[in-house]
Amino acid sequence: MTTEEAYQRLLAIVQEVNDLERAAAVLGWDQQVNMPMRGNRARAEQIGTLRRLAHARLTSPETGELLDRLAAADLPPDGLEAGVVVATRRVYERERRVPERLVTAVELAAGEAFEAWLAARRERRWAVFAPAFERLLGLVVEVADAVAAGAPDQDLAHRRYDSLLYLSEPGVTTARLEAVFATLKSALVPLVQAIQAKGGEDRERLLHGDFPEDRQEALLRRAVTAIGFDLERGRIDRSVHPFETSFDVDDVRITVRYDRNHFGRAFFAALHEAGHGLYEQGLPRAARRTPLGRAISSGVHESQSRLWENLVGRSEGFWRHFLPVVREAFPAAFGEASLDAMVRAVNAARPSLIRVEADEVTYNLHIVVRFEIELGLLAGDLTVADVPAAWREKMAAYLGVTPTDDLEGALQDIHWSSGGIAAFPSYTIGNVIAAALFAAAKADVPQLEEGFARGEFAPLLDWLRTHLHSLGARYDTEAMLERVTGRGLDPEPYVRYIRDKFSALYDLDR
Amino acid sequence: MTTEEAYQRLLAIVQEVNDLERAAAVLGWDQQVNMPMRGNRARAEQIGTLRRLAHARLTSPETGELLDRLAAADLPPDGLEAGVVVATRRVYERERRVPERLVTAVELAAGEAFEAWLAARRERRWAVFAPAFERLLGLVVEVADAVAAGAPDQDLAHRRYDSLLYLSEPGVTTARLEAVFATLKSALVPLVQAIQAKGGEDRERLLHGDFPEDRQEALLRRAVTAIGFDLERGRIDRSVHPFETSFDVDDVRITVRYDRNHFGRAFFAALHEAGHGLYEQGLPRAARRTPLGRAISSGVHESQSRLWENLVGRSEGFWRHFLPVVREAFPAAFGEASLDAMVRAVNAARPSLIRVEADEVTYNLHIVVRFEIELGLLAGDLTVADVPAAWREKMAAYLGVTPTDDLEGALQDIHWSSGGIAAFPSYTIGNVIAAALFAAAKADVPQLEEGFARGEFAPLLDWLRTHLHSLGARYDTEAMLERVTGRGLDPEPYVRYIRDKFSALYDLDR
Repeated sequence: MTTEEAYQRLLAIVQEVNDLERAAAVLGWDQQVNMPMRGNRARAEQIGTLRRLAHARLTSPETGELLDRLAAADLPPDGLEAGVVVATRRVYERERRVPERLVTAVELAAGEAFEAWLAARRERRWAVFAPAFERLLGLVVEVADAVAAGAPDQDLAHRRYDSLLYLSEPGVTTARLEAVFATLKSALVPLVQAIQAKGGEDRERLLHGDFPEDRQEALLRRAVTAIGFDLERGRIDRSVHPFETSFDVDDVRITVRYDRNHFGRAFFAALHEAGHGLYEQGLPRAARRTPLGRAISSGVHESQSRLWENLVGRSEGFWRHFLPVVREAFPAAFGEASLDAMVRAVNAARPSLIRVEADEVTYNLHIVVRFEIELGLLAGDLTVADVPAAWREKMAAYLGVTPTDDLEGALQDIHWSSGGIAAFPSYTIGNVIAAALFAAAKADVPQLEEGFARGEFAPLLDWLRTHLHSLGARYDTEAMLERVTGRGLDPEPYVRYIRDKFSALYDLDR
Repeated sequence: MTTEEAYQRLLAIVQEVNDLERAAAVLGWDQQVNMPMRGNRARAEQIGTLRRLAHARLTSPETGELLDRLAAADLPPDGLEAGVVVATRRVYERERRVPERLVTAVELAAGEAFEAWLAARRERRWAVFAPAFERLLGLVVEVADAVAAGAPDQDLAHRRYDSLLYLSEPGVTTARLEAVFATLKSALVPLVQAIQAKGGEDRERLLHGDFPEDRQEALLRRAVTAIGFDLERGRIDRSVHPFETSFDVDDVRITVRYDRNHFGRAFFAALHEAGHGLYEQGLPRAARRTPLGRAISSGVHESQSRLWENLVGRSEGFWRHFLPVVREAFPAAFGEASLDAMVRAVNAARPSLIRVEADEVTYNLHIVVRFEIELGLLAGDLTVADVPAAWREKMAAYLGVTPTDDLEGALQDIHWSSGGIAAFPSYTIGNVIAAALFAAAKADVPQLEEGFARGEFAPLLDWLRTHLHSLGARYDTEAMLERVTGRGLDPEPYVRYIRDKFSALYDLDR
C-alpha cells in the first residue's frame, strides 16, 4: 500500500464515520425541534445504531494501522493530509480508550440517573437522586481509569479528572484549571461583593414587557445576520432548550426559545447559538467529512458563543447600532430607553442561585462550585450525600446566596444525571478563551470595537476565521491559544475585561 | 447455533438495516421540509452512506445463511418469527440480485439524466433528454437481466418487465397487468367519451377562490384527524411536493403544499398522504424494525392513499359531514354551495394532459400510455426518439387530447429521469386494490358508507387495520388480495365503482 493509498483508505473511514455522526445529529435536531413525542423510542434506537456503527468503524484496528503508517510517512507537516492524520489520531485515541462495555453501562446507568433526577426535581430533594448518581459516578470513575490520560505524578483524583478532561477538552489539565479558577475566585468574589454593596435599582427591569414572538423573531434574525450567520447555510428554529448543531459547513442549525414577557432571553440565546454557528460555518471546507474539519473542543466552541453573545452582544458599540432597531420594533418598551439604560440592563449583575440565569460577573463562580465538588467526589473527600451541604457552603462563600432547597441547588443542572462529570469547566474555558481572543483581535485590528457602533462586525469575524475557524482541529486548545495569543489558557484577559467593564458600569473605585 | 440464536442474529441484522434506512428517511424528510439549499451536497453524501451500509449489511452472506437455516427450522407458520423470515427473504432476494456495481452506475446515470430532464423541460423538447435517458435505460435493462425474475416462457421484453416489477411490486406479473389494463381501457375509454359528450359547465370552478393558508391548514388537520391519522404519532408539514414518509409506527410524517387560490389541492393531498400515513401507523408493532413491519409494496401503499382520498374523501357521505365545516371556514366561497354542487366539483371529470391533475376516470389511462411505451422500449418496438410520437398517438386514442409540446407530454413526470421504469403501474394497482378492498369492507361492515355522513370513519379504518395494516408484509400483493377478496388483482370492482359513480354524477345512460 502506498502512502496515497493508505491516506485514501483513512479518508474513506473518516468520511463514513462523519456521515454516520452527522446523520445522528440530524436525528437529534429533529427530535428536539419536530418529532412527535411518541417517536422517542424509535429515535433512541436509531441514534444508538448510528453512534455504535460510527464508533466501531473509527476504533477498528485498521484505523490504528493506517494512522501509524501515515504518521511514519513524512507528510508535509502543514498540509491537509498531515492535519487530517493528527486530528483523526486525537479522536481515535479518545474513542478507543473507552471500552464498549463501559459505554453501554454508562448509558444504562445514565438512563436511570436521569429518571431519578426528574423524580428528585419533583420532590426538590437530592436524596432521591443520590443512589442512582452514586452508581453512575462509579462507572464514570471506571471510564476515567480506563482512559488513564492523567499525569502519573498526581493523586488519584487529579489523574481521574485529567482523564475526563482528556475526553472533552484535549490539552487542558486539571492543574491548569485549578490555577485558572484560583485567579478567577480571587478577582471575582470581591468584585461581586463590591457590586452588591452599591445596591441600587433593578437595572434589568427594562427588559420586561410584552414582546410578541414574531417581532422578536424578526429582530433576532436581523441580529444574527448582522454578525454574519449565513441563513442560506443554516436555519433558526424553536426548541425547549436553545442549542446549535451542524450537519455540514453548509448546513448549520440554531434554535431559540421565546419568552413573550422578556426581551433578552431569546435575543441573547440567538446571539449565543449564532456564535457557535459562525464557528461551524467557518470550518475548513477542504477538510469536510474529516476530524480536521471539526471544532477543537466544547470549550473552544463555547468561546465563540460567548464572544458573540457577551463581548459583542452586550457591548456599548453593539447597542449604539442596534438600539434604534429595537426601539422601532418595540416602541412601548424601548421608545424612551437611553443607550446607557439599555447597556446597563443587558449587563445587570447580581448573584443568583441558577447558573443558566447568571451574568458575566457571577457565571464562573457557579462553575467553581461544581468543579470543586467534582474534584472532592473523585478524591473521596466528599460523599454523594454531602453534595447539598457543600453546595450551600460554597454558594454562600463565593456568591453570598444560599439555595432554599436542592432544586435551586445541586439538582438544577442536567449534566451530572447524564454522566457529564468534568463537563462544566468547558463553560469557564469558553469565557476565558473568548476574552483572550477578543483582546488579541483588538490588538490586531484597529478600531475593532468602534466598528460595532456602525454595524461592522465583519472585521472581527474575518479575524476569527483566519486565526481559529479555518484551522479546524489542527491544534488542541492550548496549542491554538499559544499560537494566537502567545500564551496558553490564561484568565488574565478575562479578569481585566470583567473588571474594566463592570467597574465602569457600576461606578466602582478601581 | 440454535434456531433461537439464529433468529436473534437475524433480528440484529434487520434491526440495524431498519435503523439505517429510517435514518436515511429522516434525512430525506428534512431535505425536503427544512434543509437550507446549500446543504444538498452533504446531505446526498450522508444518505448515500446510510443506504450503502444498509444494503451491504442486508445482503451479506450471513443473512442468506441465517435465512436458509431458519427456513429449514420448522417455525410455526403463523408466528412472528416465520413472518419475519419470509418478509426478510423477500427483501434480501430483491436487494441481493442487483449488483453493487449496477446500483452505482444507475445512480450516476440517473444524476445525469435528471440534469438532462431539467434542461429538456426548460426547452420543452424530448430530444434534449433522449441521449441521457437512452444510457440510463440501457443500465436499467442490465438490472432487469441481473434480477432475472421474469417467467422464462415469455419474450425478452416481458421477462425484463417482470424483473423490474419484482423489484417494486413483488407478486404482480406483466401478464396480469396487461389483463388489468385491457379491462380498464375497454371500460374507461368509452366512459370518458360519454362524459365528454355531455358537455356542460365547468363543475370544478366552485373550488377556485381565496383560501388563506392558515385556514386551509386548520381544516385539513381536522379532516385527517377525523379519518384517524394520529398527530401524536405524526406530523403535517409543507414541502414543494406532497409526500408521506415514516420513521417508525409512532413517527409518521406527511406534507402538503398550499395553493391559496384553489381549495382542493392541499385538502385532497392531505387526505391522500394521510391514507399512506394510516397504513404506516397501523403496521404491526410486534414486528417493529423488521421487514415484516413494513408495507407490502408501493402499489398496496397507493391503494391506501387512494382509498381515503377518493373512495372516502370524494364520496357524498364524506361531504354531507364535512361541507358544514368547510362552509364555516370559507363562507365566501362555499356559504351558498349545495351538497350536490360540492360533490360534483370534487369529482369533476375531464380529460387533461397532465397525470397528476387527472381525475378518477381518466387517471389510469395516463398510466396505460406509460406502461405501453415502457413495454415498447424494452421490446425494441419503440426507440427512445419515437417516444413523443407514441405519446401523442396514445393520448389521442385513449383520452382524446394531444400535447402541444413534450413538457405537456413525455417530459412531465420525474420517474423516467431517475431510472423509474415499471414504476407507474403501482398507481393503477393502487386504484384497483382500493376499490377491491372497499367493496370487501362494504360487504363485511353494514352501513359503512352511511356512517361517513355522521363522521364515522373508524369502522372502515378498523377493517383495514384487521385485514391489511396489522399483517405487515407477511403476504405479497396477490396473496393478500386472495385472502381478503377471494381473488387476486382484479379490476372488476374498480370498473364497477367508477361506472356507478360517474354514470350517476353525469346522468349517463347505463
